[in-house]
Amino acid sequence: MPATDATNGIAPEPGTVYLVGSGPGDPDLLTVKATRLLEAADVVLHDKLPGPKIIERLPEARREDVGKRAGGERTPQSEINERLVELAREGKSVVRLKGGDSFVFGRGGEEAEYLAAHDIPFEVVPAVTSAIAAPAVAGIPVTHRDHASSVSFVTGHEDPTKDESSVDWDALAATGGTIVVLMGVGRLPDYTTALLEAGMAPETPVALIERGTWPGQQVATGTLETIVDVRDAEDISPPAVTVIGDVAGTRESVVEFLRNDYGDTREES
Amino acid sequence: MPATDATNGIAPEPGTVYLVGSGPGDPDLLTVKATRLLEAADVVLHDKLPGPKIIERLPEARREDVGKRAGGERTPQSEINERLVELAREGKSVVRLKGGDSFVFGRGGEEAEYLAAHDIPFEVVPAVTSAIAAPAVAGIPVTHRDHASSVSFVTGHEDPTKDESSVDWDALAATGGTIVVLMGVGRLPDYTTALLEAGMAPETPVALIERGTWPGQQVATGTLETIVDVRDAEDISPPAVTVIGDVAGTRESVVEFLRNDYGDTREES
Repeated sequence: MPATDATNGIAPEPGTVYLVGSGPGDPDLLTVKATRLLEAADVVLHDKLPGPKIIERLPEARREDVGKRAGGERTPQSEINERLVELAREGKSVVRLKGGDSFVFGRGGEEAEYLAAHDIPFEVVPAVTSAIAAPAVAGIPVTHRDHASSVSFVTGHEDPTKDESSVDWDALAATGGTIVVLMGVGRLPDYTTALLEAGMAPETPVALIERGTWPGQQVATGTLETIVDVRDAEDISPPAVTVIGDVAGTRESVVEFLRNDYGDTREES
Repeated sequence: MPATDATNGIAPEPGTVYLVGSGPGDPDLLTVKATRLLEAADVVLHDKLPGPKIIERLPEARREDVGKRAGGERTPQSEINERLVELAREGKSVVRLKGGDSFVFGRGGEEAEYLAAHDIPFEVVPAVTSAIAAPAVAGIPVTHRDHASSVSFVTGHEDPTKDESSVDWDALAATGGTIVVLMGVGRLPDYTTALLEAGMAPETPVALIERGTWPGQQVATGTLETIVDVRDAEDISPPAVTVIGDVAGTRESVVEFLRNDYGDTREES
């Protein structure tokens, strides 16, 4: 028996953990590297956010859904961290798959720190973020030479244990750039009000992209003043990305020739 | 002869133009869709920014370098726009390949508008942006629950025809989030000074990632106060991404176990 055999009590060399982003949801927007790792990994830990098209490709026997626990509540991050270390210490090659990019509101940074603190080698595999891709396939560039010199990403799904004021909407409005809110359907009334109070023009274009690049993608457009009513009238639900800024108006001038085909699109203004 | 034959004077149906991002430079970080389109396109229009590894894969006979004209100066955007329309009107399938993501400081929005205005169908193929990926492979998450509720992307390579004040560094500093500057080596002294004057702490961590995911990637770290000297001492050159904010300090705690391998890494603080 080789000295490194796990059955003789000597721990094997730890496996590598790959922190992999799945992109916005269209399997064609996975990176070449993510595709290869998903095929080769011993185990894939995921939740529902990569979307149905990507999850249905993962072989049942090699995947663990760590999104919810049996009771229906969210699996605590600490439990996911421990599971990653446990699997790696068994010598397994582990993919931690996140929707979008792991390092953009995906807690990949915390996972990296935990792994390093437990002597587990890891690799980061960046991905196409939904914050850029969902607007893009709807015909909206998040920056534009004529309209926006910067773009800021925030999450509308703020950690409830954090002080709510941690996102400074006044400062974001003052940048003059595009603002993209991830997971921003539920709190849309709060932050549109905050941005109007910060002095942004009521006629600033706003777009909502629900399930960007998923089957049944929906797009709805309005202004900072009308978008809450548009959301309700068009029944836009999570997951969705909100784009605020003049760039959101680009869609109207290009949509007739836009050939990205992900679902119905609905217009409103 | 069919009525649509190009030789009888009746124009063929226009081909589709694909606005494709190449990602940060590692060919493994191309999307599946980009890879397929690069193989299938009749023509690929590109400049040098996709990086050597991706450009060397493009077949000589099917690519046009539109980065520089014969004299060495930059090809005007108007000329590229016209060439896209011309090729599409010949019925060709055209890939317009940009470094990073076409819609993040890539002028893809302008190209989309021009194509739509000239009745040319187009598709947008989002990509991994260097603004996220270059920090990520250096062990830096652009957002982190403990450090940053937002991230803003700006370009340090401001259009010289625009008023320089179009980037509001005071407002960016006030967001309290991470700031990522693309193409930000040359003007590093200008905007670090602006951010210090806006009240950001001199000890705020800053990282420079040169040629992120390219062969010979270089990483250098310091603070808002020291980073200009670090840049000079370490000879960091364009193209590079600058990350400003507490997240830049994450690298130090994870780098020993980080297995992304793109080149030498250099440390400084």
